[in-house]
Amino acid sequence: MSTINFSPGPSIVAREVLEQAAQALLGVPEVHGLSIAEISHRLPYFEGIVRETEATLRRLMGIPDTHVVLFLQGGARGQFAQLALNWLGGAKVGAYIDTGVWSRAAFDDAKTLGDARILATGEGNGYRELPDVSDLALPEGVAYVHTTSNNTIYGTQWPTMPTFAAPHISDMSSDILSRPIDVSRFAMIYAGAQKNAGISGLTLCILERSWMDAARQDIPSIWQYRVQHANDSMYNTPPTFAIYVTLLALRWFEKQGGVAAIAANNTAKANALYAAIDGSDGFYRGYATPAHRSQMNVTFRLATEDLEKTFVAEAEAAGLHHLKGHRKAGGIRASLYNAMSLEGVERLIAFMAAFKSRH
Amino acid sequence: MSTINFSPGPSIVAREVLEQAAQALLGVPEVHGLSIAEISHRLPYFEGIVRETEATLRRLMGIPDTHVVLFLQGGARGQFAQLALNWLGGAKVGAYIDTGVWSRAAFDDAKTLGDARILATGEGNGYRELPDVSDLALPEGVAYVHTTSNNTIYGTQWPTMPTFAAPHISDMSSDILSRPIDVSRFAMIYAGAQKNAGISGLTLCILERSWMDAARQDIPSIWQYRVQHANDSMYNTPPTFAIYVTLLALRWFEKQGGVAAIAANNTAKANALYAAIDGSDGFYRGYATPAHRSQMNVTFRLATEDLEKTFVAEAEAAGLHHLKGHRKAGGIRASLYNAMSLEGVERLIAFMAAFKSRH
Repeated sequence: MSTINFSPGPSIVAREVLEQAAQALLGVPEVHGLSIAEISHRLPYFEGIVRETEATLRRLMGIPDTHVVLFLQGGARGQFAQLALNWLGGAKVGAYIDTGVWSRAAFDDAKTLGDARILATGEGNGYRELPDVSDLALPEGVAYVHTTSNNTIYGTQWPTMPTFAAPHISDMSSDILSRPIDVSRFAMIYAGAQKNAGISGLTLCILERSWMDAARQDIPSIWQYRVQHANDSMYNTPPTFAIYVTLLALRWFEKQGGVAAIAANNTAKANALYAAIDGSDGFYRGYATPAHRSQMNVTFRLATEDLEKTFVAEAEAAGLHHLKGHRKAGGIRASLYNAMSLEGVERLIAFMAAFKSRH
Repeated sequence: MSTINFSPGPSIVAREVLEQAAQALLGVPEVHGLSIAEISHRLPYFEGIVRETEATLRRLMGIPDTHVVLFLQGGARGQFAQLALNWLGGAKVGAYIDTGVWSRAAFDDAKTLGDARILATGEGNGYRELPDVSDLALPEGVAYVHTTSNNTIYGTQWPTMPTFAAPHISDMSSDILSRPIDVSRFAMIYAGAQKNAGISGLTLCILERSWMDAARQDIPSIWQYRVQHANDSMYNTPPTFAIYVTLLALRWFEKQGGVAAIAANNTAKANALYAAIDGSDGFYRGYATPAHRSQMNVTFRLATEDLEKTFVAEAEAAGLHHLKGHRKAGGIRASLYNAMSLEGVERLIAFMAAFKSRH
C-alpha cells in the first residue's frame, strides 16, 4: 500500500523529481561527476541552472518582461519584513487584507517598520470567509496593498485575486503555480517553494521592475531587491540544491501540460473532496465558506475532537499521512498541492466513506 | 581517475554524506518511506533531527550552556545586516576589523543601520596580512567587535582568534569546525554551512544567551534571534533538507575523531601544500604572509597570468577542479575544507611538481 502525503508543508514532491534530485546529489556528468550540491554557484554550469529555472518559471506563469524574478532565502516570513523595509517609512502606509494567521503575521512585522494598517479582516468569523474588498477606501499615502492568496491554516483562497488602486503585493506561498494568475497585475508576488514548487529553503519573488527600482536604497544591501536583481540572485551564495529541485519541479509541471493542466487537475481534486464532504450528511463539515474554499488546503471537522483523533489515527494506518489540522483551526486538513494526484485524493475519499460507515 | 574538488564554496562534501543524503531524499523509513524533503518540520521525527543536529554540534565544538544554537537562512550576508540591526542604533558603535572583502561587506551593511567603524585594516597591503589588534583602543559605546576568522578570497586566517574588551562577533563561514575554538569567548559565531558543514542554504548561529536577550525587540520578529530561539529555529519553515545534510556531515566528523582529529588533518594538508609552494624555488609564490596563512584556502601565484591560466586548464584535465582564484586576488586558490582528504592534496602537489617541470 503506497503512502499518500497530505502534509501542509514542506509537502509532497513528485516521485520523478525526487529521483532526479537524488541522482544529481550523487553526481552530475556536466561537472565531472561532482554533486550538484558541492559546486560553486559561479560555475557557468550552475549559472545555466539558474537561467533555466527562471526561463521555465516565466513560461509557466507567463511572467512579462516588466517583471523580474529573484531566488531568495528566508521564506515568506523573511519577505514580510523585507518588503515593509523596502517600501514603508515616512508617511507611506502599508495596507493589509487580513485573511488569517499569515497575513496577520505579515502585518505585525510591517508595523515595526512603518505605518501599517489592516483595511479589512475575516477575523470576526474565524477566518472562514474572506472579507469584502470590492469597495475598499485606500488610505492616503498607500504604498501597497498586501494580500495572502491562499490561507493554508483555515483553508480559504481568493476565487479570483482582487484588484486595488495601488501596487498589489501577494503572498502566494501556498498556491503559486496552482492556477493561472495575471502576473502583470501585481507589483510583487512571493512564495516559499516548499508547497507547490520544490523544497524548503528557497523563496521565489517576482517584482515589477520599475516599482522595485523605486524602493529604499539606504538599507542593508542584502535586503534590497534591486541589489539581488543586479547580481542575478547571487549576491550571496544561493541555496543551490533547493534551486535545482525547483527546476526539476518546474520541468515536471511543463511535462504535465503547464499551469492550465495543473489547475484543471487541482480543481478536479478539490471538487471531488468537497463533494465527499458535502455529501456526507453532516458527518464531515467543511470549515470554510463554500464560496471561499481553497483548492490547496481542504479543512473540515467531524462531530467531536475525539472522533477527529480517531480519523487521523485510522487514516495513518491506511497510509494517508499528515491530515491533522493546524492547532489554530483544529479538525482535519488535507493539503492537495500540485504534486498530489487525483488518485491520492480518491484514496482519501474512499477512506472517508469507509470511516463514516464504521463510526 | 577520480575528481578532486577544490571549490571555494559551495564545496566538497564527504562521499558518505552525499550517499546518505540521496538515500533519505528518496525515502526515510521513520516517516513511512516519504522523502526527508517532503515532510513537515513540525513532525516529531524532524524535531528529533534538529535536536540531534544541535546536540552533535554542541559536542563537536564544545558549546557551553551559556550559548544557544540557531539554524537560520540567508547566509553570512544575511547576518551582516541582521546582527547590526539587533545591536546597533543610538550611540552604540559596531567596531570592525577589516581583513578582506567579507569583513568589509559586513561593515558596509552595518553602516546603513547605525554607527559602524573600522578599527584596523589590512587593506594597505592587499589583505596579505592581518592587522595588529593587540593594543586596540575601543570606541566609547562599543556594542561589539566584528572579525572574520578566515578570509576565503585572500587566503589569510587568524592563527589564534584575537580577544577584545567587548563582545566579540566572528564570521566563521570558512573555517567553522576546522579547528578547536573556545566558544565561551564569543558573543556570537556565525557561518554559512556550505564550506565546512554541509550545503548552501543553512546558516549556523551560536549566540551567548544573555547577550542575545539584550538585543533590540522593536524590529521585525524574523530578524530577532531571541524569537528564533524561542521557536527552536522553527519560527518559519527551516531549510529542512540542508539541516539534515549538516547532521550527516556532523556525524561524519564525529566518526573522523571530532574537531581535534579534523584540525590535525587540516594542518597536515595545509602544511604539505605550503611546503610544496615554498620549496618550488619561486615557481609558485604564496600570496598571504606566512604567519597569517589560511589552512582552508591556500592562495598562490605563478609568474604570469597566462601561466596561471595554463595551470588551471591542465589541472582540470588532470581531474583537479575549481582551482582558479577569486577575481579580486587572482592566481590560484586551493580550498581544503574539512571534507578534503590528505590524498586529494597530495594529488595536487604531485601535479604541481609535474607542471613545474613541464613549464
